[in-house]
Amino acid sequence: MNTGIIGAGRIGRVHIRNITSSVPQINITALADPMLNEEITAFARQHHIPKVTTDAREIFDDPDIDAVIICSSTNTHAEYIIEAAKAGKHIFCEKPVDYDLARVREAIDAAENAGVILQIGFCRRFDHNHRAVYDMVRSGSVGDVNLIRISSRDPEPPSIDYVKVSGGIFYDMMIHDFDMARFLAGCEVTEVQAWGSVLVDPAIGEAGDVDTAAVMLRFENGAIGMIDNSRQAVYGYDQRVEVFGSRGMAFNDNDVLHTARILTADSTCSAPMHRVMFDRYTQAFISEMQSFARALETGTGPEVNGEDGLPPVLMAAAATLSMKEHRPVKISEIIETANVNPVHTA
Amino acid sequence: MNTGIIGAGRIGRVHIRNITSSVPQINITALADPMLNEEITAFARQHHIPKVTTDAREIFDDPDIDAVIICSSTNTHAEYIIEAAKAGKHIFCEKPVDYDLARVREAIDAAENAGVILQIGFCRRFDHNHRAVYDMVRSGSVGDVNLIRISSRDPEPPSIDYVKVSGGIFYDMMIHDFDMARFLAGCEVTEVQAWGSVLVDPAIGEAGDVDTAAVMLRFENGAIGMIDNSRQAVYGYDQRVEVFGSRGMAFNDNDVLHTARILTADSTCSAPMHRVMFDRYTQAFISEMQSFARALETGTGPEVNGEDGLPPVLMAAAATLSMKEHRPVKISEIIETANVNPVHTA
Amino acid sequence: MNTGIIGAGRIGRVHIRNITSSVPQINITALADPMLNEEITAFARQHHIPKVTTDAREIFDDPDIDAVIICSSTNTHAEYIIEAAKAGKHIFCEKPVDYDLARVREAIDAAENAGVILQIGFCRRFDHNHRAVYDMVRSGSVGDVNLIRISSRDPEPPSIDYVKVSGGIFYDMMIHDFDMARFLAGCEVTEVQAWGSVLVDPAIGEAGDVDTAAVMLRFENGAIGMIDNSRQAVYGYDQRVEVFGSRGMAFNDNDVLHTARILTADSTCSAPMHRVMFDRYTQAFISEMQSFARALETGTGPEVNGEDGLPPVLMAAAATLSMKEHRPVKISEIIETANVNPVHTA
Amino acid sequence: MNTGIIGAGRIGRVHIRNITSSVPQINITALADPMLNEEITAFARQHHIPKVTTDAREIFDDPDIDAVIICSSTNTHAEYIIEAAKAGKHIFCEKPVDYDLARVREAIDAAENAGVILQIGFCRRFDHNHRAVYDMVRSGSVGDVNLIRISSRDPEPPSIDYVKVSGGIFYDMMIHDFDMARFLAGCEVTEVQAWGSVLVDPAIGEAGDVDTAAVMLRFENGAIGMIDNSRQAVYGYDQRVEVFGSRGMAFNDNDVLHTARILTADSTCSAPMHRVMFDRYTQAFISEMQSFARALETGTGPEVNGEDGLPPVLMAAAATLSMKEHRPVKISEIIETANVNPVHTA
Repeated sequence: MNTGIIGAGRIGRVHIRNITSSVPQINITALADPMLNEEITAFARQHHIPKVTTDAREIFDDPDIDAVIICSSTNTHAEYIIEAAKAGKHIFCEKPVDYDLARVREAIDAAENAGVILQIGFCRRFDHNHRAVYDMVRSGSVGDVNLIRISSRDPEPPSIDYVKVSGGIFYDMMIHDFDMARFLAGCEVTEVQAWGSVLVDPAIGEAGDVDTAAVMLRFENGAIGMIDNSRQAVYGYDQRVEVFGSRGMAFNDNDVLHTARILTADSTCSAPMHRVMFDRYTQAFISEMQSFARALETGTGPEVNGEDGLPPVLMAAAATLSMKEHRPVKISEIIETANVNPVHTA
Repeated sequence: MNTGIIGAGRIGRVHIRNITSSVPQINITALADPMLNEEITAFARQHHIPKVTTDAREIFDDPDIDAVIICSSTNTHAEYIIEAAKAGKHIFCEKPVDYDLARVREAIDAAENAGVILQIGFCRRFDHNHRAVYDMVRSGSVGDVNLIRISSRDPEPPSIDYVKVSGGIFYDMMIHDFDMARFLAGCEVTEVQAWGSVLVDPAIGEAGDVDTAAVMLRFENGAIGMIDNSRQAVYGYDQRVEVFGSRGMAFNDNDVLHTARILTADSTCSAPMHRVMFDRYTQAFISEMQSFARALETGTGPEVNGEDGLPPVLMAAAATLSMKEHRPVKISEIIETANVNPVHTA
Repeated sequence: MNTGIIGAGRIGRVHIRNITSSVPQINITALADPMLNEEITAFARQHHIPKVTTDAREIFDDPDIDAVIICSSTNTHAEYIIEAAKAGKHIFCEKPVDYDLARVREAIDAAENAGVILQIGFCRRFDHNHRAVYDMVRSGSVGDVNLIRISSRDPEPPSIDYVKVSGGIFYDMMIHDFDMARFLAGCEVTEVQAWGSVLVDPAIGEAGDVDTAAVMLRFENGAIGMIDNSRQAVYGYDQRVEVFGSRGMAFNDNDVLHTARILTADSTCSAPMHRVMFDRYTQAFISEMQSFARALETGTGPEVNGEDGLPPVLMAAAATLSMKEHRPVKISEIIETANVNPVHTA
Repeated sequence: MNTGIIGAGRIGRVHIRNITSSVPQINITALADPMLNEEITAFARQHHIPKVTTDAREIFDDPDIDAVIICSSTNTHAEYIIEAAKAGKHIFCEKPVDYDLARVREAIDAAENAGVILQIGFCRRFDHNHRAVYDMVRSGSVGDVNLIRISSRDPEPPSIDYVKVSGGIFYDMMIHDFDMARFLAGCEVTEVQAWGSVLVDPAIGEAGDVDTAAVMLRFENGAIGMIDNSRQAVYGYDQRVEVFGSRGMAFNDNDVLHTARILTADSTCSAPMHRVMFDRYTQAFISEMQSFARALETGTGPEVNGEDGLPPVLMAAAATLSMKEHRPVKISEIIETANVNPVHTA
């Protein structure tokens, strides 16, 4: 399956490396990056990618290319999805599709109307720990889901420059947890209550964002979700989920660097968790791309399809409004205000 | 220190047993219970309690008695505190002081005005696991507190008859967590947002209560707390706290019955947690009473004093209103509405 | 069941306290201690023991006493068992029965011939963690036992004076593990290979003992056991067992003081284990005495009977010889040399 | 660094894959395998290896090749080491060097005399868990080493055909643990006592081997080691080490597939460990080869050098003799009998 990659930044290179070493079904034949330079060219050569270009259009126009992997900046996602769909190419696109709800809808619709596969890069669904909890829930071992708790904390805050363009903590960081909450619950969120505080760095507050956020979610079935985010967990990249139900509880803990422990007269110590997202989710990125390859091979819907791209953005919008107006916000209110169809209508 | 006990129900007997075996400074010389019967009389004799009576007044009037332990039903707590205070006796009273805020204030004031020790029975503060987290926070290891998470789930719901008179999940069950949140944070809660659902038993909903509740707390310092309660955790009595701060995270896990594990071809299994509150908090009840004995001995303020009795009730009132009106409720609103002084004024 | 206790040292007082608080079936009516002093007398009074004496004979001669609990020094155990048996009293005796094999045999035989219950104080069999492993093995979950590993390490060495009279590490310390090995395996040991080193304190070597010991055991069924002992584990009182079999592995870990953990930028730390034997085996001593009470009540054989008293001493003798002569030693060799019947012959 | 690989069996391919994806300093330019077939040729092409041959000599004779990686069958190791050394090529050789002590000596000497790097494939030294324990020991946190415990158990026995040619459990399986024991202790073993049993499969006994083995090691400094091996741990590939010393204990546990746990009314279950050696030691094989690459780059001695190849074989010889003659065997006895220098003499 000949594939073109758009964007050779950090995440783009991770995908290229993973595909080369672990996804033999995908053959990367072209790389497009507007910032193309010698380093990227060398990287491409090293990974046996025959064609490099600054123009994504060359990928869309290449009749030998079957699929595109979009790793460019968020503001280009929707456009590239639409272009790729027009060109009849299957699509893997990093999250989020867009910050604008109508634009998200448009992009998803484009792929659906073109009949191409669209997979959204919610990589955490492929993490071994989160997936194990998901499998326990889906197997029925937990029974009906009553409560979901998610903690997701970064080891250190991004730069203030980044914060300013990030869209805010709910779009930038909690978007993953919104997707995870839906994924684990197996149903949709109907209402959001968000609180935030500036506790890590006043500059984040001055930039108009919060660095500590807590959100309650109400699910269709009455279950309640609780998510917390912090921009700075000094002990590492903290990623935990818990699903409590009528028949039990499934939850996970963080991966740690090793299993060794040391006991002395003064302390009992064990290994820290990972500090870097790419170290923590190493395997998830590989599994995600293997999943995309399977979807391409079988022609069946991907594990995270286009329709999965909209609800997290709806939840982020609701959370942003809830925090601003200090009240619970229903997802239906967001849908009505934005005048966006929650589902594809042919 | 001669002490009288009022109420020989389940919790009263636990205190009597613990004092007899582990609190030599306290000498129980009288037991009052309006439901006094042969079984209670035999229990008293077995524990070498010389005097049994149906009338609590006999304890208040006994000049040889220095302290009283109030284990009667909640609706009598305030009255007995006031009576004991008038009689100049030190007081240990089970939680909550009362459901009525003014009445709570009146009882606490009575003890303070009389200059007697008043300890409230928030036993979880004395639990080895929760106390260890508290000590880590107080030592500064966690830094400034940013987030607090508390999960508190019962193994099975109480009878519907009990639910009807319980005052609701926030007064009856989450009251402990409200106290724990203040205790861990080291500062007061200013605002509460409560959500509830009926997911365990529709009869609980018909009785006007919820069985699954989630609450967000805002603390004075901007920190955010998240509490969840369920009336039915089929896997046991689930009691966990987590404090996340600028320098680290302290948290605990449940005690389990033993440390053994078994690994077979099919599974890796370990021991369950406790299912019964008195098994889980065995040591906490002993430590609590030892703490009261130390307060009596030294004449200094108890570890959980009268003033600690009011805030959890304020929080329960705010949570109840928040859930009812589906909006965040400030503690100050409750104080104003109830016209109750948040602190003792001589 | 009226019971006399002989010996009011540390272990004697533990039994008295436990019986008073947790074993209502046993009524202690007499306490004998040759070193009787005011402190012991006060302790007896506090625990409502009516009679104190310096002479154990007064207990044996008291027709109202049904059972004796022997907590005196090891060199008196055999004699007191024999005396108690003659007097027709049921017996609980601390371990070991004696260092001399013939004397052990004689004492056990005396109890068996008199038809009285004799329980040996191998308290670890009643520990919740070890018992959980035992139950897993007995349930068949582990399948046929292939390997047993036991680590048993003291937090600090005893005084050199004690070492000199202790009988050596195999009689004094590993005797518990020899019993545990038999208990877990469910069959007898046939051969022992012991190695020792002086690594903790040269004075222990000068006193003729080792402070670090490793032993291999061969069981009747071909399974192999491995035990290690150290007189000094600076991190606490380390007590772990592991049973590996054809269908799985059961093992336990140490109890720790609490479940709290703290994660900071520098470390991930959890609670230490216990440092004091009586803190670690608190519950085991209670359960052991409750088991004895059940045996007295039902008249059936105790969970650790007289015959259980001999094999650990045989194993200690074999280990001592093995280390001395630097060769494997069969239990049969010890039996023949000592000319002692391995089982009771009426 | 141009490198030739000899042997394209399972382990050879693992090294090729790891080098291609994770060791950019090593450039594989030739592959030799006497069983060369289409599958191997395709594998080589896929990994961009320009030259494939059936004759290892072509690698030794190639002046453009700087290093060889020997993954052929054990009986060829010594010969290939000698050939490679003669050709002045650096060498990575899988363990063990040979079963014959003189032959091991000869091969190591050849490399040392030629001044080429020789690294032995004791991959477990590079495992994150074992290495973490090693680092704790080397940092001094454990103090002086007193006891070492190693459990190493395979998920299932090899074929009886393999058992027959394996050299026995001590050469084939425990050889890794012998190396690990030396590695962790930081000093040499002087004496070995080995016991074995046939508990897994009688056919293994009929083939002249045991399937369950326990060994005690005495180290130069008086410390004692205990190793157990089983050919069949039905719950997975069980790999644990523990180092107990004067200042503490360092130990590790097995990696498990994920961190999720599920608690229900009936059980508390967590994830199994790995079942396949290559899954368990995935990262160790990569780190080992990266270590070899560093040695090649810097020209300094490898982390596991040629001299590390002899002691494990000496220990295996001692264990084999000890089990056969049912007595402790000193390493010095093996050295004298075999007339082999324990260290290189120029």
